[in-house]
Amino acid sequence: MDVLVPFAVAEPKSRLAPVLTPDERREFARAMLADVLDAIVLAGGTPHILATEPFDPAVDIPGSLDPPVVVDDRPLTDAVNTALERHGHTASGSTIATDTTGDSAFPCEDGVAVVMADLALATPDALTRLFEPDRDGNPSEESPADVTIAPGRGGGTNALVVRQPAFRVDYHGASYLDHRRAAERLDATVSTVDSYRLAVDIDEPADVAEVLIHGSGAATAWLRDAGFTLETADGRVTATRA
Amino acid sequence: MDVLVPFAVAEPKSRLAPVLTPDERREFARAMLADVLDAIVLAGGTPHILATEPFDPAVDIPGSLDPPVVVDDRPLTDAVNTALERHGHTASGSTIATDTTGDSAFPCEDGVAVVMADLALATPDALTRLFEPDRDGNPSEESPADVTIAPGRGGGTNALVVRQPAFRVDYHGASYLDHRRAAERLDATVSTVDSYRLAVDIDEPADVAEVLIHGSGAATAWLRDAGFTLETADGRVTATRA
Repeated sequence: MDVLVPFAVAEPKSRLAPVLTPDERREFARAMLADVLDAIVLAGGTPHILATEPFDPAVDIPGSLDPPVVVDDRPLTDAVNTALERHGHTASGSTIATDTTGDSAFPCEDGVAVVMADLALATPDALTRLFEPDRDGNPSEESPADVTIAPGRGGGTNALVVRQPAFRVDYHGASYLDHRRAAERLDATVSTVDSYRLAVDIDEPADVAEVLIHGSGAATAWLRDAGFTLETADGRVTATRA
Repeated sequence: MDVLVPFAVAEPKSRLAPVLTPDERREFARAMLADVLDAIVLAGGTPHILATEPFDPAVDIPGSLDPPVVVDDRPLTDAVNTALERHGHTASGSTIATDTTGDSAFPCEDGVAVVMADLALATPDALTRLFEPDRDGNPSEESPADVTIAPGRGGGTNALVVRQPAFRVDYHGASYLDHRRAAERLDATVSTVDSYRLAVDIDEPADVAEVLIHGSGAATAWLRDAGFTLETADGRVTATRA
């Protein structure tokens, strides 16, 4: 399955400013991206980076993966929808109408996934449940749902699979509920993936502890190298820096 | 499977004080307990309430379930460990050494679960994955792990299954990591359940939105009756009260 991974190249993770410098935020974001790409490949997916500006994965991120990069500098929702549209056109055999990047990025396949680049806890198992939703407690279903959503905290959509070519995303606000309603309007079936690892995106300083508790990849190693450790105070666990 | 559900009878959910009065917190906690009991039964579990003081489920909580209640007014960790010890004694065929409640509460069975009463998003599917961990992406494993943990946010332990009679809990601090280490010390195998619905306990005002977004039971209905609705502002979803 083709998997779009939107990635903000220049100034990622601004809400981590209280604990990381701009350079550190860039490094940490690339480490998380490397982990997400690894997990996607191990789950059988084919990642495509949807970047806000030109970017060379072979140089800029740890590890040896070198997925194709499509550049689109518009806001997340617009960039993803253009990519979905292009995929739908290719998948249905139509001519690609507009390809602003000069890149016929998304070959024909059944369904396309969108997975956020800051899901530092994502594992191949969790993504397999997203890509193959019939393995997630719905063994009786003959065919997968038209739209499969892995909800994020606070009503977000951290990952989804779209098998209905007319479906478009809207990441503003309670996107999980909006995406359900959008699917309903298309008479598209919806399933969800109940995964903590896909529900936790690393946005704020409080999220850093989750990476130290549950992570095992490049992002966790980066945090440890940067001096972050877990500390328990008043019955709560936080990440602190030496 | 026997399932212990610890429940604070008198002053539950104190961290919800900014949005709910003491009486409302008691009502809301009982609605969440009713939802958790329903989900346990639908997942094939046999719930036992581990209450901080005498309490009649048939009178005090919505719905018709009337599970046995064991009273233990000590802190959570001590109360759960005494219950685990009693279960282990019963399961191994030994005499019950001390039964301070006069209640031989936990009959012999393979494994005992502990599920928190504030998991308002818990579904039968999520709990089935906890109770039958071989359904959770580990189809090759012949026998279930000695300890199965559903981690909570911030390194907590929201639910677990114990199949090793010597295992004891410690809910203080990063209990997820502590429970992994405790299992290691016993040479006990550990598995985890990757579930958002089991990871979200309803503790703070920000958590109320999660119940409105993902819930469908008594707790969600209670919040709606109390005037809570979802509101989107600055791209974030919060629960506000009319």
